[in-house]
Amino acid sequence: MKRIAILGSTGSVGRSALGVISGHKSAFRVVGLTANRNIELLARQAKRFNPRLLALGDISRYGALKKALKDPRKVLKGLDGVSEVASMPDADIIVVALSGASALLPLISAIRAKKTIALANKESVVAAGPIIMGMARSRGAKIVPIDSEHNSIFQCMNEKDKAAVSKIFLMGTGGPLKNVPKNLFEKLKRRQVLAHPVWKMGKKISVDSATMMNKGLEVIEASHLFGVSTSKIEVLLHPEAIIHSMVEFTDGNIIANLFHPDMKVPILYALNYPERSESRIRRLDFSKIKNISFQKPNVENFPALGLCYRMAKKGGTYPACLTGANEEAVRLYLEGKIKFTAIVSVVEKILSRHKNIKNPSLDEILHTDKEAKEEVRKLCSRF
Amino acid sequence: MKRIAILGSTGSVGRSALGVISGHKSAFRVVGLTANRNIELLARQAKRFNPRLLALGDISRYGALKKALKDPRKVLKGLDGVSEVASMPDADIIVVALSGASALLPLISAIRAKKTIALANKESVVAAGPIIMGMARSRGAKIVPIDSEHNSIFQCMNEKDKAAVSKIFLMGTGGPLKNVPKNLFEKLKRRQVLAHPVWKMGKKISVDSATMMNKGLEVIEASHLFGVSTSKIEVLLHPEAIIHSMVEFTDGNIIANLFHPDMKVPILYALNYPERSESRIRRLDFSKIKNISFQKPNVENFPALGLCYRMAKKGGTYPACLTGANEEAVRLYLEGKIKFTAIVSVVEKILSRHKNIKNPSLDEILHTDKEAKEEVRKLCSRF
Repeated sequence: MKRIAILGSTGSVGRSALGVISGHKSAFRVVGLTANRNIELLARQAKRFNPRLLALGDISRYGALKKALKDPRKVLKGLDGVSEVASMPDADIIVVALSGASALLPLISAIRAKKTIALANKESVVAAGPIIMGMARSRGAKIVPIDSEHNSIFQCMNEKDKAAVSKIFLMGTGGPLKNVPKNLFEKLKRRQVLAHPVWKMGKKISVDSATMMNKGLEVIEASHLFGVSTSKIEVLLHPEAIIHSMVEFTDGNIIANLFHPDMKVPILYALNYPERSESRIRRLDFSKIKNISFQKPNVENFPALGLCYRMAKKGGTYPACLTGANEEAVRLYLEGKIKFTAIVSVVEKILSRHKNIKNPSLDEILHTDKEAKEEVRKLCSRF
Repeated sequence: MKRIAILGSTGSVGRSALGVISGHKSAFRVVGLTANRNIELLARQAKRFNPRLLALGDISRYGALKKALKDPRKVLKGLDGVSEVASMPDADIIVVALSGASALLPLISAIRAKKTIALANKESVVAAGPIIMGMARSRGAKIVPIDSEHNSIFQCMNEKDKAAVSKIFLMGTGGPLKNVPKNLFEKLKRRQVLAHPVWKMGKKISVDSATMMNKGLEVIEASHLFGVSTSKIEVLLHPEAIIHSMVEFTDGNIIANLFHPDMKVPILYALNYPERSESRIRRLDFSKIKNISFQKPNVENFPALGLCYRMAKKGGTYPACLTGANEEAVRLYLEGKIKFTAIVSVVEKILSRHKNIKNPSLDEILHTDKEAKEEVRKLCSRF
């Protein structure tokens, strides 16, 4: 029986993780849950899964949560509370399903506690890849990615074959705007931007999929998780979302991972790692798959992709500035304060002013993130 | 430097193996070569690769070979000679690229000598799977398949994941007659039968691809090599020959192997196993792959497929009778003595008369093979 704590249990991945756990009750037990603001759902999850520890990120809703809970359960407060759940001694696996850079400190807390980490947050790895991966190595904490593409790459790459990787094909559907002419981007309705063709996800990542910033961040994330230069990572569009990524080796072989597109598949894999368990998750039916196609991404319509490659190459605090600025720009877009087309141009503007710090400390990365967000707010308040 | 002996060096796979070795001179050295009848090519290969040992299967051509060789090289004779090369002490890897059931004794000789075996012969595994696999296990001889589909499955299946295999998708192009209406099978020219759409292979396997007997034998072979019931092995047609096979696990994940269809890829993999080396073999270019499609095989047009599943289930000496009868029927077809459509019906007839032996010994298997061939000759002499 594996004991699981989920950071961000009310989000899309967190809810899917609880769905997986419900389907495998004899294999998993929930010992900790955290949320940011959704106290109603957190209270319901607490009642159903009966974890020893809860934490709430947004302190202002603490009283309301205590009231919503029917029993006198222990509730920790703020980012410190979330980080405490991330290192709770009675958890074997920490699911990091927080959104944005807020995951960074809890993730580091889990690594310090030598946990197995099922990681669904990419901003933390993009912003602080060398620190996170170095610390995970030295502490012996295992990071198993949940993000479908990275989970696929993880499955395609044996430890013994790592040195022979010649290329990673990072797959993407192309997002909801793949076939929309760029001159119509100005007039897009929010529901068009959020309407991902395959995956039902949270709002932040859905917007990132529309700009393809998500795919660019995934390239940087993959380079850190798998120790492969971004020059060896190629984004390949594959609208059918059947092959979830591929790894090419120096001897000409490619290993690919395929599954019916449902986040429960990579989540179950990460929770069970290194075993594989039985599951009744829907299987791919090849008699119904008429064909599988591939395309190169349109880098002109989606400049975020090239931007991410450039920032990965610059390194230092540029990637942290990138994720911070993007997170804030997406937030402002979702609040109706800036236009869709402004998101990437605002991020580019902030990056163009950024003063890089080489080999940054964790504090410098956190400061860069905070500053980038402030800069975006300042810039956009003038719009 | 790995030392290689190739049994069947003048055949299609043998020649490809020598091509791979030529391209990686610092990694491999040829220490033994054998052929059946093609003395001219064997002599040229001997001159070029300078192996310590040669063997010639067809004794009647021994004198001619000795004359063709420019130096007083040691040449062994007959099946015993081939078996001696298979167990030569100075070879690390034995490439078994012999055609038909003649591979069985040399293969067993290599297993007894605890060699690593790069196996390109399927008839031996089909006829004597339990004996071969049991002996390989107990002697600690590693068998790495070269056949593209089985090499793919081998790459897709980690040792630790073996217990979690739920299905093997054994891919096939469908062969040269996939789109030919059955009523035209009677009138097929030999060049149409031998014209495989993707792979350039020897004549016996090309005919087997046309009847789809080859795919059926591959199902039985895979069940022995990977310890998976044939009920878990599904033949999936994929005319583009880009995905070479796939393994589905109980958790819903599928791992697939893709490469540009060139036998040098699996041969290089097998010779290098467990490492992966650098190679300049052509890579898949996904910008040129427009799509990948799948189809179920047409079991009515190609009854050999169902026949193989049934014989695998019956077990005993049925599979040996199947490969023996088929080998002889194909030989008679290639000699112009029977029609294409007679091949599978002759095999069915011989099998319908066969008296099964459960848990047969090696001698009983060899006897079954010989007897099945004689029965085919008798039956066809009446046509």
